[in-house]
Amino acid sequence: MEFESFLVSLGTSAVIFVVLMLLFTWLSRRPGNVSVYYPNRILKGMDPWEGSSLTRNPFAWIREAFTSTEQDVVKLSGVDTAVYFVFLSTVLGIFALSALLLLPTLLPVSATDNSLKNSRSATDTTSNGTFSQLDNLSMANISKKSSRLWAFLGAVYWVSLVTYFMLWKAYKHVAALRAEALMSSEEVLPEQYAILVRDIPSPPKGETQKEFVDSYFREIYPETFYRSLVVTENSKKLARAEAVFAATSNRPTNKTGLLGLVGERVDSIDYYTKLINESVTKLEAEQRTVLAEKQQTAAVVFFTDRVTAALAAQSLHCQMVDKWTVTEAPEPRQIIWENLKIKFFSRIVRQYLIYFLVAITILFYMIPIAFVSAITTLGNLQKALPFIKPIVEIAFIRTILQSYLPQIALIVFLAMLPKFLMFLSKSEGIPSQSHAIRAASGKYFYFSVLNVFIGVTLAGSLFDNLKALEKKPNSIITVLATSLPKNATFFLTYVALKFFVGYGLELSRIIPLIIFHLKKKYLCKTEAEVKEAWYPGDLSYATRVPSDMLILTITFCYSVIAPLILVFGVIYFGLGWLILRNQALKVYVPSYESYGRMWPHIHTRILAALSLFQLVMFGYLGIKLFVWTTLLVPLIFISLIFGYVCRQKFYKGFEHTALEVACRELKQRPDLEEVFRAYIPHSLSTHKGDDHQFKGAMSRYQDYAAISAA
Amino acid sequence: MEFESFLVSLGTSAVIFVVLMLLFTWLSRRPGNVSVYYPNRILKGMDPWEGSSLTRNPFAWIREAFTSTEQDVVKLSGVDTAVYFVFLSTVLGIFALSALLLLPTLLPVSATDNSLKNSRSATDTTSNGTFSQLDNLSMANISKKSSRLWAFLGAVYWVSLVTYFMLWKAYKHVAALRAEALMSSEEVLPEQYAILVRDIPSPPKGETQKEFVDSYFREIYPETFYRSLVVTENSKKLARAEAVFAATSNRPTNKTGLLGLVGERVDSIDYYTKLINESVTKLEAEQRTVLAEKQQTAAVVFFTDRVTAALAAQSLHCQMVDKWTVTEAPEPRQIIWENLKIKFFSRIVRQYLIYFLVAITILFYMIPIAFVSAITTLGNLQKALPFIKPIVEIAFIRTILQSYLPQIALIVFLAMLPKFLMFLSKSEGIPSQSHAIRAASGKYFYFSVLNVFIGVTLAGSLFDNLKALEKKPNSIITVLATSLPKNATFFLTYVALKFFVGYGLELSRIIPLIIFHLKKKYLCKTEAEVKEAWYPGDLSYATRVPSDMLILTITFCYSVIAPLILVFGVIYFGLGWLILRNQALKVYVPSYESYGRMWPHIHTRILAALSLFQLVMFGYLGIKLFVWTTLLVPLIFISLIFGYVCRQKFYKGFEHTALEVACRELKQRPDLEEVFRAYIPHSLSTHKGDDHQFKGAMSRYQDYAAISAA
Repeated sequence: MEFESFLVSLGTSAVIFVVLMLLFTWLSRRPGNVSVYYPNRILKGMDPWEGSSLTRNPFAWIREAFTSTEQDVVKLSGVDTAVYFVFLSTVLGIFALSALLLLPTLLPVSATDNSLKNSRSATDTTSNGTFSQLDNLSMANISKKSSRLWAFLGAVYWVSLVTYFMLWKAYKHVAALRAEALMSSEEVLPEQYAILVRDIPSPPKGETQKEFVDSYFREIYPETFYRSLVVTENSKKLARAEAVFAATSNRPTNKTGLLGLVGERVDSIDYYTKLINESVTKLEAEQRTVLAEKQQTAAVVFFTDRVTAALAAQSLHCQMVDKWTVTEAPEPRQIIWENLKIKFFSRIVRQYLIYFLVAITILFYMIPIAFVSAITTLGNLQKALPFIKPIVEIAFIRTILQSYLPQIALIVFLAMLPKFLMFLSKSEGIPSQSHAIRAASGKYFYFSVLNVFIGVTLAGSLFDNLKALEKKPNSIITVLATSLPKNATFFLTYVALKFFVGYGLELSRIIPLIIFHLKKKYLCKTEAEVKEAWYPGDLSYATRVPSDMLILTITFCYSVIAPLILVFGVIYFGLGWLILRNQALKVYVPSYESYGRMWPHIHTRILAALSLFQLVMFGYLGIKLFVWTTLLVPLIFISLIFGYVCRQKFYKGFEHTALEVACRELKQRPDLEEVFRAYIPHSLSTHKGDDHQFKGAMSRYQDYAAISAA
Repeated sequence: MEFESFLVSLGTSAVIFVVLMLLFTWLSRRPGNVSVYYPNRILKGMDPWEGSSLTRNPFAWIREAFTSTEQDVVKLSGVDTAVYFVFLSTVLGIFALSALLLLPTLLPVSATDNSLKNSRSATDTTSNGTFSQLDNLSMANISKKSSRLWAFLGAVYWVSLVTYFMLWKAYKHVAALRAEALMSSEEVLPEQYAILVRDIPSPPKGETQKEFVDSYFREIYPETFYRSLVVTENSKKLARAEAVFAATSNRPTNKTGLLGLVGERVDSIDYYTKLINESVTKLEAEQRTVLAEKQQTAAVVFFTDRVTAALAAQSLHCQMVDKWTVTEAPEPRQIIWENLKIKFFSRIVRQYLIYFLVAITILFYMIPIAFVSAITTLGNLQKALPFIKPIVEIAFIRTILQSYLPQIALIVFLAMLPKFLMFLSKSEGIPSQSHAIRAASGKYFYFSVLNVFIGVTLAGSLFDNLKALEKKPNSIITVLATSLPKNATFFLTYVALKFFVGYGLELSRIIPLIIFHLKKKYLCKTEAEVKEAWYPGDLSYATRVPSDMLILTITFCYSVIAPLILVFGVIYFGLGWLILRNQALKVYVPSYESYGRMWPHIHTRILAALSLFQLVMFGYLGIKLFVWTTLLVPLIFISLIFGYVCRQKFYKGFEHTALEVACRELKQRPDLEEVFRAYIPHSLSTHKGDDHQFKGAMSRYQDYAAISAA
C-alpha cells in the first residue's frame, strides 16, 4: 500500500468518525431518542439528562466520562463492567508506557539506517514490493547483523516488563474490586446464600428426591441448612415461559394474531400454570408423586449464612467425587436450567468433545464454508426454493448471485461464528450464562488470532512465503516473522478503521436508533413492546473482549517492528475507554454479574498475546541474523513463570469466594424467604400465600423451624 | 542361562526358604525371643501366644493369618496396613486370573511351534545365544507373522481387562475402608478436629501472632472455633527433644557416659524445660514478648466439631491464595515441625527443584557412583584415614580392596538411595511424615523401574542391542522389546530369589533377632533400652511398596512373553500376603495412620506398569511383524482413560475428608482439651494445671467461653 493511500484511508475514517460524533451530539439531545441514548439511566430510575448534559456544550459527555469514578461504574453497571474498564486502562497503560520509550528511540534508529534505500532491488525487504515512507520508520529499514538491533532487543524487554508490571497491578486491583463487591454489607445477594448441587443420586425407595436432598444436607449442616429447591421439569419449562413473559412484560393475550410466536409461548404459560394448579389438587390426593417424578438430579440448597454457603461450595460432600457435586450457585437470572441435569462424566466427555470440535473449526474453518458454498450454488438453491426461479432467470441478478454466493456464505458463516461458539460452550454443560460467555469468548479469541491475524499475515504475502520457504526457514514462527513487516500498513489501517468507524458507530448508535424507530412505528402496540424495542442489552463480552484482544495482539506483535502502531493502539484503547464509559453509564444494562470472573481469562490471553509477540520477535531478530537473539529465550520463560505465579496467587480467589470475604457482617439480617424466592420462577413465586401446595418442590419451612427450635 | 542352572538356583532358594521357616518355627517359641516375634501384640497389651500358637502345630501361624479378617488388621495395625493387603490381594488376583487363562492357552501354542528349533542358527531369537527348554514355552518360539500371535494379542487384552476390573473393585473397596475409618464413632481422632494453617502474614502492630490467628478464625467461625496453637521455635525444638525422650522412654540421665549422643539430647530437654520455666516467669512480667518473638508463621487451629474442620481444611480463606493456606492437620506424631514455616512459593520452587534433581539422579545415577568410587581409591582413603595404612599395606587385603571398592561404593550408594530420596521428599516442605513417605516411594518406584528393570534388560543384552540398532528399530520401545525375551530366565530367578530368600528372612527375623540379643547383652542397661532394642518399627512402605512394584512391573511385562512368570508372580504376592499378614498382626507397629492415602499412588503406579507392559507388547508384536499389532493402540488409550476416570471419581475423596463422612456423630462428646493437648509436645502438656502461664502460645479458653456464652 502506498503511503498516500494509507493517509487517504486514514483521513476518510477520521471524517466518518467526526460525522458520527456530530450526529450523536445532535440526535442524543432530541427527546424522542432519549430511550436509545440513556436507557440504563431510565431503567435505574434516574433523570436521563441529569446535570450538564442539557447545557449547550456538545462535549459534556466527555467531561462526564472522565469525571466518573470506578464506584459510579460499579453502581450503574456492575463489577464486570468495572473490570472491563480495568482491562482497557491496563492495556492503554501498557501501550502508552511502551510508546514513551519506543517512539523516541526506535524511530530515529530506523530512519537513519538506509538499508532499504540502498537495496531497492531486494524485494523481500520492501512493503509488498513497493517502497513507502512508512517502511523507513520500521525495523525493515535496519540492515542485517546491524548493532542497531540491540535497541530492538531492548525494546522487546521494555514492552514485556511494562506488561508484567501493569498486569500484576491490575490483577491485584481486580481482586480487591471483587472482594469489595462480595463483602458488600449493603445488599443481600441471594447467590451468596446458596449452592448448586448436581449429580444427586437416586433417592432410596419411599423417599422423594426432595426429602433425600433435605435429609442429606440437614445431617451435614444441622444448624445452618435452610431449605432446598429441587430442579424440576416444570420449573425449567416455567422458567422459559417466564423469560418470554418477562420480555414482553405484560400478558399479551390480545396479540396472538399479530405475534404468532409469542402467542404460542403465552399458551405455554397458561398450560403450565394450569398444570401446576391441577397438580396442586392432585398433590393433596396422591402425596407428591406427580412433581416427584419430574424432579431432576440437581438442586439449589440454601443456608442461613454466607460463610456456610461459601464453605459448602468449596468442599467435597460425597466420598465418590461424581456424586453430590457442588459449586457456588450462579445468580438466579443466569442459570442455564436445562444444563443442570447433565451428569458429571457426561460433562467431562462433552467438554473434550467440544474442545476437539473447536480445534477442528479453527484449523479447518474454510472447509464448512466451502461446503456451504458448494450447496448454495444457484442450481441447488433453485431446487430447494422453486419460487425464486423467475427472479434468478434475470441475467443481471444471476451474474451477481453467482459471483457473490461464496462470499455471502463466508460472511454468513463468520457472522454465525459467535453464536455457534456460544452454542458449543453451552453444550459443555456449564450451569451459568456468564461462565458460558467466558468459554465462548476464549474460543473466539483463539479463532480470531489464529485465523484473522496469522491467516491474513501468511495469506497476505503468500508468494513471499513461498520464497521464504525455499530458503528453508526453521519453523512457522520464522515464516510468520518474515511475513509480518509486509503487512504493517494493512494492520495500521485495520486498527484505525476499528476505532474510527467502530467506535463512531458505537457512540452514535445509528443502527439501534433506526431499528427502534422502525419498530416503534410499525410493530409495537403496547408500552412493553416499545420498551423491548429500545432495551439495549449488555456490553456483550463474548464478542467485544476477543475483538479487543485481536487489536491487542496485532499491536503487541508490531510494537517493535513498526512502533508507529503503538500510537494507533493507544488511540484505540483510549477512545474505547472514553466512549464505552459513556455507553456503560448511560446505555447498556448488564444482564448478569459474575464479580470480575472474566479477569483471569483476560489476563491469560494478554499473556498469550505477549508470548506470541516474544516468539515472533525471536523469529524476526533471527532473520536479521542478530547473534544475540537468544537473549530473548529467558523472556519467554519469564512469561510462563509470571503466568504460573499469577495463577497460583490469584486464581483460586476468582474461582471461589474467600472466607475472609464472606464472613463480613451484613447491615441488616437477610430475609431468607426473599433469598429462596429469588430462585423460583416468577409465576410460581406469586403463590406466596399457599406455600404448602408445593411441598413436593419446596422445603418445608415448618419442619426446619421445628428442628431449629429443638 | 541353562535350564539346569535355573533349576539349581530355584532349588537352592527353596531350600534356604525351608530352612528359614523351620528356624522361625523353632525360634518363635522360645520365651526369650517373644519380644522379637510378637512385639505388636505385646505393645497392644495382648497375650503374645494367645490361642493356638502354643499348640504343637508348627504351622498354626498360617491358619491364624488366613482366618484373620480385614477388621483384625485395621484394629491391630491400622487402615494403611489393611490397604497394603488390598494391594497384595489385588495384584494376586490380577496374576491368578491372568494365569488361569494364559497358562492353558499360551504354553501349548508356544510349545507346538518349532520356530526356534528350526532356526537354531539364528542367534537373535535364542536365549543369550544358548537354547534352553524354557524358551520353548515362551513367545520367542513363535515364528514371525504367525497367526498364532493372535493368541498373544488376545492375552494382552485379557491381562489388561482383568487389571482394570480388579483395580476398579479395589479402589472402591479402599474408599469404603477409608470412609469407615474416618466416620468411626468409637474413637476421637484429634486430627479430625484441627486444620493446619501455614503462610500466616505478619500480624498488625501491637498484636501477637497468636492474637492475630485467633481473631482471624474467630471472625470466620464465631461458633465453632475452639482455639489455636501457633508453632513456635520452642515447640519445634521441644518436639525434637521429646522424640528422643519418647524413644528412650525414661530419662536416661545416668547414661550420658555410655550413650554420648543420647546424653547430649537429654541435655537439650533439660535446657528447654528450664527455658520454658524461665519464660513462664518472664511472661508474667514482660507480657508475652518472649514467646511471641519465637512464634512462626504456622499454626494448628482447633474446632469444636469434625464437619467444620473438614470444611475449613478444603476452603480458601484468604483472597490471596499464598496467604493463610490451609490443609487437613496431620496426626500430631507425624508432623514435620521444621517444614511448617516454609513459605508457599518457596514450597513450589523446592518441589520443582527436587523433581529436577530426582530426574537427574534417575538418568545419571552412575555419575555420582563413579565420582564416589573415584574419591574412594586406596590412595585417597589412606590420606583421609592414616591409621588404616598398616592394614592396607598387606598385599592380600590391598588386592581385595582395590578390586571391590567400586562395587562397595555402588552398594553403599544404592543402600543410601531410599534415605536420600526421603531427604529430598522432606525438603519439598511437606508437612507430614506419611506424605513424605508417599513422595519418596514414588521416586523410588521410577528409579527402580527405569534403572533396575529397563537398565538390566538393556545392559544384559548390550551386544544384541547393537545388532538390533543396526537394523534401525523405531524407538526405545522396540529396543526394549527386543531385549526382553532374552532376560526372561534372569528375571524368573530374580523373582524367585525375592520371595524365597526375601520372605524367608522377613518371616524368620534372623537379623533383628541377632541385633536384639547382641544389644541386650552388651548395650542395654534399663528396661526402656531393652524395649528400644526390640521395638520393631513399621512396615516401611517407602521401600517395600516400590520393591513390590518392581516385581509387579517385571511380571506384567513378561506375562505374555513368558507366561510362566505368572506362576512366580502369584507365589510372590501370595506368599507375601501370608507372611506379611503374620508380621502385621504380630510384629510391626505402625508409626502413623494416613487412612489409606497411599492407595491412589499405588493405583497410579500399577497403571503405569500396565501401560509399560502394553507399550512393550506393542513393540514386541511389531518385531514379530504381526500386522494386527495396531489393535493394541486402543488399549493404551483405554489405560489412560481408565486412569483419568478413576482419578476424577475417587482421588478427591483421598485428598480431603468428604463431609458425608465427617458428619457422622460420635458416641461420646469429644474432650476438646484432650484434642488440643495431643498437639502440644509432651513436656509442655504436663503443665496441665497452670494453663494461664502459656497465654502467649495457647488460646485463652476463658475468652472463648465468654464469647460463646454471649
